[in-house]
Amino acid sequence: MYSKCSYFKLFLFLFVPVITFAQSEQMLEKIYKQALNHGQAYAQLEYLTKQIGNRIAGSEKADQAVRWSYGLMKELSFDTVYLQDVDLRRWDRGDKEVARIVGGQGLLTVLALGGSVATPAEGIEAGVIEIKELSDLDALDKNTVKGKIVFLNKPWNESLIETGVAYGQNSSARSRGPVKAASMGAVAYLFRSLTSSIHDYAHTGGTRYNGEVDSIPAMSISPVGANRVSAALKENPELKLYLKQNSGWKEQVATHNVIAEWRGTKTPDRIITIGGHIDSWDVGEGAHDNGTGTLGTLDAIRTLMKLGYKPQNTIRLIFYMNEENGLHGAIKYGETAKNNNENIIAAIESDAGGFAPRGFDIKGSDYAITHIVENWKPLFEHKYWVSRFLKGSPGVDSGVWGSKFPNAIMFNFRPDPHRYFDLHHSHKDVFEAVDKRELQSGVGAISSLLYLLDQHYDNLNQ
Amino acid sequence: MYSKCSYFKLFLFLFVPVITFAQSEQMLEKIYKQALNHGQAYAQLEYLTKQIGNRIAGSEKADQAVRWSYGLMKELSFDTVYLQDVDLRRWDRGDKEVARIVGGQGLLTVLALGGSVATPAEGIEAGVIEIKELSDLDALDKNTVKGKIVFLNKPWNESLIETGVAYGQNSSARSRGPVKAASMGAVAYLFRSLTSSIHDYAHTGGTRYNGEVDSIPAMSISPVGANRVSAALKENPELKLYLKQNSGWKEQVATHNVIAEWRGTKTPDRIITIGGHIDSWDVGEGAHDNGTGTLGTLDAIRTLMKLGYKPQNTIRLIFYMNEENGLHGAIKYGETAKNNNENIIAAIESDAGGFAPRGFDIKGSDYAITHIVENWKPLFEHKYWVSRFLKGSPGVDSGVWGSKFPNAIMFNFRPDPHRYFDLHHSHKDVFEAVDKRELQSGVGAISSLLYLLDQHYDNLNQ
Repeated sequence: MYSKCSYFKLFLFLFVPVITFAQSEQMLEKIYKQALNHGQAYAQLEYLTKQIGNRIAGSEKADQAVRWSYGLMKELSFDTVYLQDVDLRRWDRGDKEVARIVGGQGLLTVLALGGSVATPAEGIEAGVIEIKELSDLDALDKNTVKGKIVFLNKPWNESLIETGVAYGQNSSARSRGPVKAASMGAVAYLFRSLTSSIHDYAHTGGTRYNGEVDSIPAMSISPVGANRVSAALKENPELKLYLKQNSGWKEQVATHNVIAEWRGTKTPDRIITIGGHIDSWDVGEGAHDNGTGTLGTLDAIRTLMKLGYKPQNTIRLIFYMNEENGLHGAIKYGETAKNNNENIIAAIESDAGGFAPRGFDIKGSDYAITHIVENWKPLFEHKYWVSRFLKGSPGVDSGVWGSKFPNAIMFNFRPDPHRYFDLHHSHKDVFEAVDKRELQSGVGAISSLLYLLDQHYDNLNQ
Repeated sequence: MYSKCSYFKLFLFLFVPVITFAQSEQMLEKIYKQALNHGQAYAQLEYLTKQIGNRIAGSEKADQAVRWSYGLMKELSFDTVYLQDVDLRRWDRGDKEVARIVGGQGLLTVLALGGSVATPAEGIEAGVIEIKELSDLDALDKNTVKGKIVFLNKPWNESLIETGVAYGQNSSARSRGPVKAASMGAVAYLFRSLTSSIHDYAHTGGTRYNGEVDSIPAMSISPVGANRVSAALKENPELKLYLKQNSGWKEQVATHNVIAEWRGTKTPDRIITIGGHIDSWDVGEGAHDNGTGTLGTLDAIRTLMKLGYKPQNTIRLIFYMNEENGLHGAIKYGETAKNNNENIIAAIESDAGGFAPRGFDIKGSDYAITHIVENWKPLFEHKYWVSRFLKGSPGVDSGVWGSKFPNAIMFNFRPDPHRYFDLHHSHKDVFEAVDKRELQSGVGAISSLLYLLDQHYDNLNQ
């Protein structure tokens, strides 16, 4: 008996992984076929972008997007679909901003930074201090800066293929600049847009204030505009800029996360979270940021449903509210899940655009990542052109609530990074910038990962 | 002494590869920095596409592109730049094609296939035989087909991420269809466009005749048009189509390949060929096919030149004439190189678009490919997002002459494949469809490969 059993075990050892690989291979083929031939993310993105449009948190359009998303989820075979209350203060851009060189020709292309206060109604006319880094202010005395517009003009690092890193190199100057400039007595903060392109689009994004320091208006300027101001300052260091905006924080509003659950058939108490944020900035159409992430993850689940799949664990789809300007949805989600003592084992987030899928950044143990690289990556790499499975950070929303669930393994979907910051947070982020095949190929990748995670989660733990 | 020497050898053995890797790493960093910050492929592509435009072999514009390319090469520090005579017959599309359902509303979007003969001046009006595969004709008798238009309506295989394979699944029906249909007595051949999108653009491409069979006119129809004809045929199998075009072969013309050589400093007799075809189809602007391939490879060399690099082997840049409609340039190049008994050790071709670089297909020994995967790929993979180094076919032009140089290792540049066949050979292939960062990132990848190949070619041989 012993000997027979031993041979049988050897047989299992040798062949079971191969059979599993072949089965997974077949399932991925079905998933990709479904996602590419019958996927609906692209068609639904057209509706979201063209019929609803951009949808800043607290706006009527964000509400509309919530209701529409709820309806989409209701159409599918989720076990439950619900709205999770998220309260936040609404911020409004107000009238179109105005910026020009005093005495110069034409307007400069600008956008108020998210969260910024208004200028006085008559605008601000002031001299300019141009700096490259926020720390350059430390070398100046307050009298030099007082009454001036601080103009942060740090070009984008074009050398990096990983554009997210280039973004990170400059983004703290967007969030921290106004406070720093105000503490030196500046009257406004003008920020060179965070974009990989030299074009005449301004790119907005969140900034923040600090109650101890006077708030000053903050706006982003297009790279073309920034270059123009910089060149003019070289000609005339005394030149003045005129800036006007009437953006500001408005009333408290009741908004929502949209959540749907597909109950697990074996271990329903174990939850895999998947999703992205449904809000966008109030310019463009929020197509790549983040229509593709929400409708892509929804379509990833739809793909498995259409194939008749039954999940082992509970799969929870979440469209977060207000990633862009305060993260209220993610915070609320995390608090609720923690209070309910939920067993969230994993998360997948999509919030980096709908470009050709390249892989996933993974926050997890080295053991888990090694297992994924050795066993899952080969399923994707050659056939589906998805090959990056690297240790990395979770997405922004899951990163926020993930701190409460340190054992959850978290996947951050990584599409190709070349084009994202050409259009991110700008009027260029429209439906036409999304390619159908790229988006649906991403749906295939996300759906496949979700399937593998649901089937083989236990293999990720030592 | 022995013992010291042995330690020294051990030291070398342990550290030399590491130093080489670090040196290569540094050089790649310089290359990418140069290509992304100061590369000129994108700006020159704008000139080629907007100032010259599309450039079918034998046309005045193709000549203009040749002269302009020659000038670009002359500006750089090549040791020699010359035109290589290429004689070919010119094909001309003639007037805009006309196609409609007889008695139906509106026109169908069509393009004559390259090399096609004209319809009679008054056009053709005939019934239609719709088929999915060319082999479907074998099941029909000649009387059924005689006097009809054969309409090949095979949809694109949307499931494949590798769109080149999907193209290959349908493309022989484009090249062989007219002869097969004519041999059954058909009066014209209507071909569903080879494209990954369901849109109203027709995609042209080469077809061929056989002197033994009567030539019949052949055209491609947009997928939207093909679906319309197919639906109308289901309603009325007797319906007729009206087709008219006056395309045809014209006079013999003298054209050229454009060639530049950068002489090797160590082994100048060893030649590395790099380039792509300068001609395009006569629709759109030939941006991705193949402005990006020619100007990208030129920029890859410019990048090394700007860095003060001195090649060990001779690097020969070649812009081939007429890849699209007869391969005359590649044939002439191969014959000349063979007659001159040249020592071509390697080739790099770029002819698959200017999308985000993914890697290189390699025609070479298993030994060479293993060496590249183990030693070169790690330089590209994580930092530059270039990770496909797979055994595969050379590009079309180098494939043609490569048969005469079986020992040359050949690299076929592989950009991301998702978007290529949306625009390939159609009016959509314009400058605006090219992303600057994607193109210049590809220049970085190609330039880096060229550098490694020049430096480490000997490591590829056992």
